[in-house]
Amino acid sequence: MTHTQALAEFLAGLRYEHLPEPVLARTEELFLDWLGSALASRGLHPIPLFERYARKMGPADGPSQVLVNGSRSSAYFAALVNAASSHLVEQDDLHNSSVLHPATVVFPAALAAAQDLGKSGRELLLACVAGYEAGIRIGEFLGRSHYRIFHTTATVGTLAAAVAVGKLLDFDTPRFVDCLGSAGTQAAGLWEFLRDAADSKQLHTAKAAADGLLAAYLTAEGLSGAKNILEGEQGMAAGMSSDARPECLSDRLGSRWALLETSFKFHASCRHTHPAADALLELMRREGLEHQDIAAITTHVHQGAIDVLGRVLVPHTVHQAKFSMGTVLGLIAVHGKAGLTEFHELALNDPDVAALRDKVSMRLDAEVDAAYPARWLGRVEVRSVDGRTLRGAIDEPKGDPGNGLNRAELEDKFRRLLDFSATPGADRLIARAWSLRDAASVEL
Amino acid sequence: MTHTQALAEFLAGLRYEHLPEPVLARTEELFLDWLGSALASRGLHPIPLFERYARKMGPADGPSQVLVNGSRSSAYFAALVNAASSHLVEQDDLHNSSVLHPATVVFPAALAAAQDLGKSGRELLLACVAGYEAGIRIGEFLGRSHYRIFHTTATVGTLAAAVAVGKLLDFDTPRFVDCLGSAGTQAAGLWEFLRDAADSKQLHTAKAAADGLLAAYLTAEGLSGAKNILEGEQGMAAGMSSDARPECLSDRLGSRWALLETSFKFHASCRHTHPAADALLELMRREGLEHQDIAAITTHVHQGAIDVLGRVLVPHTVHQAKFSMGTVLGLIAVHGKAGLTEFHELALNDPDVAALRDKVSMRLDAEVDAAYPARWLGRVEVRSVDGRTLRGAIDEPKGDPGNGLNRAELEDKFRRLLDFSATPGADRLIARAWSLRDAASVEL
Repeated sequence: MTHTQALAEFLAGLRYEHLPEPVLARTEELFLDWLGSALASRGLHPIPLFERYARKMGPADGPSQVLVNGSRSSAYFAALVNAASSHLVEQDDLHNSSVLHPATVVFPAALAAAQDLGKSGRELLLACVAGYEAGIRIGEFLGRSHYRIFHTTATVGTLAAAVAVGKLLDFDTPRFVDCLGSAGTQAAGLWEFLRDAADSKQLHTAKAAADGLLAAYLTAEGLSGAKNILEGEQGMAAGMSSDARPECLSDRLGSRWALLETSFKFHASCRHTHPAADALLELMRREGLEHQDIAAITTHVHQGAIDVLGRVLVPHTVHQAKFSMGTVLGLIAVHGKAGLTEFHELALNDPDVAALRDKVSMRLDAEVDAAYPARWLGRVEVRSVDGRTLRGAIDEPKGDPGNGLNRAELEDKFRRLLDFSATPGADRLIARAWSLRDAASVEL
Repeated sequence: MTHTQALAEFLAGLRYEHLPEPVLARTEELFLDWLGSALASRGLHPIPLFERYARKMGPADGPSQVLVNGSRSSAYFAALVNAASSHLVEQDDLHNSSVLHPATVVFPAALAAAQDLGKSGRELLLACVAGYEAGIRIGEFLGRSHYRIFHTTATVGTLAAAVAVGKLLDFDTPRFVDCLGSAGTQAAGLWEFLRDAADSKQLHTAKAAADGLLAAYLTAEGLSGAKNILEGEQGMAAGMSSDARPECLSDRLGSRWALLETSFKFHASCRHTHPAADALLELMRREGLEHQDIAAITTHVHQGAIDVLGRVLVPHTVHQAKFSMGTVLGLIAVHGKAGLTEFHELALNDPDVAALRDKVSMRLDAEVDAAYPARWLGRVEVRSVDGRTLRGAIDEPKGDPGNGLNRAELEDKFRRLLDFSATPGADRLIARAWSLRDAASVEL
């Protein structure tokens, strides 16, 4: 039996009754967190492009909700637009060791399919847990070499979305194997866009969710797929990884709940900036430092941070600013936070932020790199204008499982996200998320 | 200037008036040849699955024709179903040195978009030439290492389709660069499905055409893409090739018409079987051999043939039989041809074919491998039951540019393809293809 088959068997056998209470509660929390990210991007480029495309190519109405505009479409186009929407403001969740953002691919596909298929809140929750558990293990399987070139949330996201929808379609083991095959052979997404600040990140999540849903629906129709798309000689690992570890695919299925390891994002920037941001915050508070006191900052980082953030020195767009280590630390040092409002109002215009940005450098650190991606350590070294060398360190960035956000903090983040896009209905949607397991339908 | 930029500039500047008469005429021929392949698959698994998916997720009507069922949909779903359809019976064209099947990805996307945009036959022809010229060069660029794991028609097909649609949308150079970026970052398709005879080949072409169209339409809406998706450090070649040659991308743009190098398929099997099939035909005719006279056949092949065909010893489906060297040579030896009818009626049932199949082996040949993929040499060695060793050799399989099909042969092949699926209208469609350049609209 391959590890892929073991995974498929676990997915087919997973029942709502198997899910421990903390997993259920956390899934509701991840759902709310995702919903906030999706609604926050209302009207922001490039989301309206996807909305127009869906109206042009899709039906005028349908069973599934397009969140940013309140319209309805088929499940395919709802998944497409909702997944484009939920990764834009860089506030959606992240799983550390897989470097996968599960929410932005799993929830759009699962919600669209659940609405199409008339499923309950429990069925939606179960499907999303399946998507998280599979996606995280597949991300870990493909390893760091994959992430160096490929955007794991795009590639692995296609399979995670397919699994979630497959669970809603009540797949047995052979169907899950086929579904993984059809999803894996569609998996795509390259980091190249980063250096141009191009719009591909939204295209990636949109396509991952929609392609995953397509794979599952076609599997339900009877389309067969490769039986060993992950581990096979001409499969994903063979083509897109040089350090794949097949045993990750079946790692402690049913006893380890990888979903619980998912981190919430506190700052509105690329997760690779968060450890340094928190370490700088800690240092500045401890030392009573102001941004004017800082002559230089060296962040000690893992290689992945350099690969993803190293291209951006002077950002030209808000989205690119979220991938600029200097800008993020500039916002932290000057304004004490790096939330959505700070990015949109201050990241590109504030001369103090720009001045601090130019004092920031990244340096590969052996200890930080060895701990990554299981642990995202934050290490910064500040040279003060009065000549002192100060060090800040954190071992768990805010939002990590050991340093998480409670429901009150999540509600507060959700309200801020909806306020940002002037979207009403926060109270109602919060109540909806907290009672998702009792909902007969998943209409929002 | 990168080679990608040079290619984009060529594509933006290409005008109908630039196309030499032989290129125009050949494009009409390739169009008819493609149309036959698409219509021949009517009703065959898995095409109805894609038709149902399109009806479920797409609009009930639209500007673009779904060829196999005569319905209409949006351009996206017409491209999806038509591209799934046209690669199933293994009769669509192939470009040797890129190992790309251009027709099955370029024409479905271009026809669907041309119908949506109300374009003329000339505009359609120009767009398809652009798609061929770009796709072939990108396939050559990615090289043999890419094809070893990735189905080039799926990956490169996404870009070829995007370019054709981009030409219909009248892109300038920057838009073509963006469009390539958004198409390239969606490029996917793994060979792993072959060993299971899974349905992914149809999924690959369907998604390549549809994703390419999506990339172009979103580019027209304003979506930006990576500026160097092919050559960049985190682009397609970096992630999916180890022998990429950037100079291929801009090879003799405007003077070399790569479209003219495209081969028509004569046998209804994987192109990797054709050189050996023709060499065996030549040998048997020359020597007056019957299949009962044959004790063993050794085919001397390139590595790519072993990679693609090596998995299938005893085929279980008609489609898999087309990837079985033994079955193809069995049909050739026993029945003198390996057309659609032979595959569907004899490939799996005829004991004589099975007996000959088991006498066939493949051996890597240094000369054949060195010539590939520019030239597909056919070399077979037959041991006769009376103890002789006989050799057959051809340097250009039937259908290659130097050994092509004339219009009468193409019409004959088209009629056979339509007869196979009991599709009426051959005369009308042939006339339509031969007058495509004068057509005000491209309604079929």
